[in-house]
Amino acid sequence: MTKFHGVVPPVVTPLNLDFTVDYSSYTKVLEHLIGAGCHGVFVLGSTSEVVFHDERTRQQILEHTVKVVNGRVPVIAGVVDPTTDRVINHTKVAKAAGAAAVVVTAPFYTVTSQAETMDHFRYIKDAVDIPLVAYDIPVCVHAKLARSTVTTLAKEGVIIGLKDSSGDDGNFRYALLDLAEYKEMFLMTGSEIVVDNALQMGAHGVVPGLANVDPHGYVRLWDAAQRGDWVAARKEQERLCKLFEIVWVAQGRVSGGASGVGGFKTAMRSLGIIDTNVMPRPRQALNDTETTKIDAILRSTGLLG
Amino acid sequence: MTKFHGVVPPVVTPLNLDFTVDYSSYTKVLEHLIGAGCHGVFVLGSTSEVVFHDERTRQQILEHTVKVVNGRVPVIAGVVDPTTDRVINHTKVAKAAGAAAVVVTAPFYTVTSQAETMDHFRYIKDAVDIPLVAYDIPVCVHAKLARSTVTTLAKEGVIIGLKDSSGDDGNFRYALLDLAEYKEMFLMTGSEIVVDNALQMGAHGVVPGLANVDPHGYVRLWDAAQRGDWVAARKEQERLCKLFEIVWVAQGRVSGGASGVGGFKTAMRSLGIIDTNVMPRPRQALNDTETTKIDAILRSTGLLG
Amino acid sequence: MTKFHGVVPPVVTPLNLDFTVDYSSYTKVLEHLIGAGCHGVFVLGSTSEVVFHDERTRQQILEHTVKVVNGRVPVIAGVVDPTTDRVINHTKVAKAAGAAAVVVTAPFYTVTSQAETMDHFRYIKDAVDIPLVAYDIPVCVHAKLARSTVTTLAKEGVIIGLKDSSGDDGNFRYALLDLAEYKEMFLMTGSEIVVDNALQMGAHGVVPGLANVDPHGYVRLWDAAQRGDWVAARKEQERLCKLFEIVWVAQGRVSGGASGVGGFKTAMRSLGIIDTNVMPRPRQALNDTETTKIDAILRSTGLLG
Amino acid sequence: MTKFHGVVPPVVTPLNLDFTVDYSSYTKVLEHLIGAGCHGVFVLGSTSEVVFHDERTRQQILEHTVKVVNGRVPVIAGVVDPTTDRVINHTKVAKAAGAAAVVVTAPFYTVTSQAETMDHFRYIKDAVDIPLVAYDIPVCVHAKLARSTVTTLAKEGVIIGLKDSSGDDGNFRYALLDLAEYKEMFLMTGSEIVVDNALQMGAHGVVPGLANVDPHGYVRLWDAAQRGDWVAARKEQERLCKLFEIVWVAQGRVSGGASGVGGFKTAMRSLGIIDTNVMPRPRQALNDTETTKIDAILRSTGLLG
Repeated sequence: MTKFHGVVPPVVTPLNLDFTVDYSSYTKVLEHLIGAGCHGVFVLGSTSEVVFHDERTRQQILEHTVKVVNGRVPVIAGVVDPTTDRVINHTKVAKAAGAAAVVVTAPFYTVTSQAETMDHFRYIKDAVDIPLVAYDIPVCVHAKLARSTVTTLAKEGVIIGLKDSSGDDGNFRYALLDLAEYKEMFLMTGSEIVVDNALQMGAHGVVPGLANVDPHGYVRLWDAAQRGDWVAARKEQERLCKLFEIVWVAQGRVSGGASGVGGFKTAMRSLGIIDTNVMPRPRQALNDTETTKIDAILRSTGLLG
Repeated sequence: MTKFHGVVPPVVTPLNLDFTVDYSSYTKVLEHLIGAGCHGVFVLGSTSEVVFHDERTRQQILEHTVKVVNGRVPVIAGVVDPTTDRVINHTKVAKAAGAAAVVVTAPFYTVTSQAETMDHFRYIKDAVDIPLVAYDIPVCVHAKLARSTVTTLAKEGVIIGLKDSSGDDGNFRYALLDLAEYKEMFLMTGSEIVVDNALQMGAHGVVPGLANVDPHGYVRLWDAAQRGDWVAARKEQERLCKLFEIVWVAQGRVSGGASGVGGFKTAMRSLGIIDTNVMPRPRQALNDTETTKIDAILRSTGLLG
Repeated sequence: MTKFHGVVPPVVTPLNLDFTVDYSSYTKVLEHLIGAGCHGVFVLGSTSEVVFHDERTRQQILEHTVKVVNGRVPVIAGVVDPTTDRVINHTKVAKAAGAAAVVVTAPFYTVTSQAETMDHFRYIKDAVDIPLVAYDIPVCVHAKLARSTVTTLAKEGVIIGLKDSSGDDGNFRYALLDLAEYKEMFLMTGSEIVVDNALQMGAHGVVPGLANVDPHGYVRLWDAAQRGDWVAARKEQERLCKLFEIVWVAQGRVSGGASGVGGFKTAMRSLGIIDTNVMPRPRQALNDTETTKIDAILRSTGLLG
Repeated sequence: MTKFHGVVPPVVTPLNLDFTVDYSSYTKVLEHLIGAGCHGVFVLGSTSEVVFHDERTRQQILEHTVKVVNGRVPVIAGVVDPTTDRVINHTKVAKAAGAAAVVVTAPFYTVTSQAETMDHFRYIKDAVDIPLVAYDIPVCVHAKLARSTVTTLAKEGVIIGLKDSSGDDGNFRYALLDLAEYKEMFLMTGSEIVVDNALQMGAHGVVPGLANVDPHGYVRLWDAAQRGDWVAARKEQERLCKLFEIVWVAQGRVSGGASGVGGFKTAMRSLGIIDTNVMPRPRQALNDTETTKIDAILRSTGLLG
């Protein structure tokens, strides 16, 4: 197993009431995750609400992360923006700040193609010498990374891994099979609810947003899978599936994006990990009624007394 | 008719071989458009390849535009980025640079909703005192502005106009009908090929990317419509439809985005308006074979001798 | 102009309380349409709720139509089912019943391609000697007929027309331009709300479901267009756009399909054309509250005293 | 475990050169499946190309199946057509022919809603007393059965099972969790390539089209899962994933639908199970070059000597 493996949560970015980053709470989140045994942290991804932050804030978040983590686990950084040269700029900043790898999506806003997307990754790799992880997240960029795009880039040495948030588990399995002989690969699922399955397929890592709320649960799930105890893995996963219901509590009143990360933040506030559940504009925070429902889910899954 | 009306081309951004902006060619583009009688210019939109440019370049493009245009026509500026506060930053820069109005899309990358999108526009309007135009471009942001979103924001005074690049002409017609009594409204179609129809419905402006190649054609079309000569308008439109075939010449070999704007740039190079047909990365430029086909279309539509 | 031209409404199928066809009301619908000056009728299309009827009922509806119409205008029949041989069976029945032409969609339910869709039309044409009209209705079959599919089939002599319910008016315009020299072509828009535009482009016919409610309006619109009076055409179209709001009255409570055709049926009942607004299962009929709203729209557009 | 469980292949329908059903080959397919230990058969589903067959042929296929199977395993029958009353007719025929249960999709072609879809299932259940299985196949009907639609119908006693061909494994897991206390439920995955995962989640059955080609493989996979040997299950699944590559051999030349079922038929012909690889119109059969590629895959996965 390479240094990239295991439970690597996409870290939530807590905010102050004035929408600035609450670094005090953020430090607590990082300690919470590392203390629970997580094997890495992924910052500035979709769960971190990366596209809500300007360049300077992104840099500060990453520098703060590297300082707090202090080499205990690898820090992987999202470099999310629509087009190649903007991503290259983020990648240079990430490398300078001490990221161990960067996570790159397909271009977005622009109407693109698989061939153009492959060039996008190649240009970035050529420009900055840092390990690249492909981020397959069609719900945000509205294009799926084709199986051949991933395997071609991996075999060319352009990418060293994949964060698969596409929900297409069959396609993810083919990525694992196609690249089985490439021992340095780091293929991760972004799922929260079929993590046991991904590990049974041979996934090298998991990036569940829900691990911000319950990192111990995902570490137990990972450990059970490593020792081949699939009964325990399934049991843990099923408890986490119940916990995951927090992401739908506000659905309908607020947008899907606000409901999901807002559910995480609200639960983390109830658990005393962060101070507010403030969301970046135009997202709305969850309200008291929704918080009560989330607390009930936290209690029923053993997280709140 | 307000100061916002007429043919307002989304200005192509010519590049040097090193991917920097070719300001010499860019100046020629602006003079070409204004000289042909265009009633405004829209810079930093999708046709300008705005999402390929970083913040500093965007500011330079806009400042250069305002200087060259020098008050002859209104300069409208795109402020395109995924989320509210990043758009507010662009809007402040645009106002300081002298833009007469800004064009704002729905949030993208993030999973959003119509209610959140309305708040997005309201926050921007609250933050910067400049006329806002809503940019309905689902092919890029993957969400359509609902009829009620547009009319609500217009009636609240949040937006003064709409650039409709959705292709949903029936819905555009309802926007025109719903807001018929709001005399300050500036409702534009982004179409190149049904402009006569949009004008017959009562559209106040047209924003055809193809006007970079043939601004005289669209000005003639506008003028015919103003005098109610729909036979002439249709004839001009049909010629422009044939010209518009340039956007599909490279389709298949390059992405849809590269084929379209690349077709414009290649035609403009053949017409001597700009020096290169270089595209920003990861887009590929059109090649010699494709240029030959584009030249044939330019000849058959009377633009090239 | 060929015998196929003009206003050709897709005829609503009124039902009895037991869900059988109410032929007495149906006869009145046909007389209402022909009496208003419609130039043809299109039966067994989406507005006729064709896919809710079994083979025997379809045949009866068509035979009844041919008998009532009695040669006064052409009867065009939908032959809608998922695959080739089933459509061929319907086409044989339609020919035997006296249909002047049949309207054929792309295959559906099955995952298809443009090439396969072209073969679908060719097989049907080979099997039955009757004029074919291609029905482009992606909202139902979830595939758009490509521009090249339509023009290829037309130039091969496989199809003699197109009913374009895709909402892609730019593409429809290219069909008109591509086939301008094929004088026998019958290219119709399925729109209710941009009919004046389609006619200005040169469309040969219009197939508005709303003409069941107000055939006189669409005939006036057609006549205005024929004499080049685009001011009158627009005015009539704008009134019809207000009337078209009836299709959204029940939206949300019932499905989009039920809200649209249900709106037509409810308005026709209020106007005394049909006896019930019963919908085929699983669609729900509009209720009293919705009927009151529809009556208000009928009054405001001059149809109800 | 109820009588409904285990490996229940969706049976391929072999055709003669004149497109009629080749019942001699069809009998061999059924014997091949039952002989391999399959626990049931699902006829007249998407893999059976049900929407290509008219009502009489469907009835004959089902009657032939019941006769050949002769009670050895349950026969489950698809009753696939766009709307409620047409499905009720098929359901009556299926019951009379001896089907143990019927499989019902959401309505299609018509624009529907979750509420209307629930009524669709309720009307069918009211009309015919036979166990209903919901068929979630958005790739064909273009609507996903919502989690609440499935659980509501199950708790009301309207459906006794689910065939999940949506590819949304996380949602399938929630169906399993939501209905864990409903011991009569029969929840099946339609996947070929993550069957081990579905079984690890607790799925009661699997409906892989690929089992037509290699039923022994899926039975071994099922048996390994039943005894908790997930290492063996994964190994078998990975071999089947390699075999599944046959569905993409003709992709691009023919439609996705033709490539998939055509791949099965071609492989079955090479294995001597059926006589032709004829496809119903407008689908094209695979050619010799493609057959050679499929044979290579059959050899590399141990099925062909």
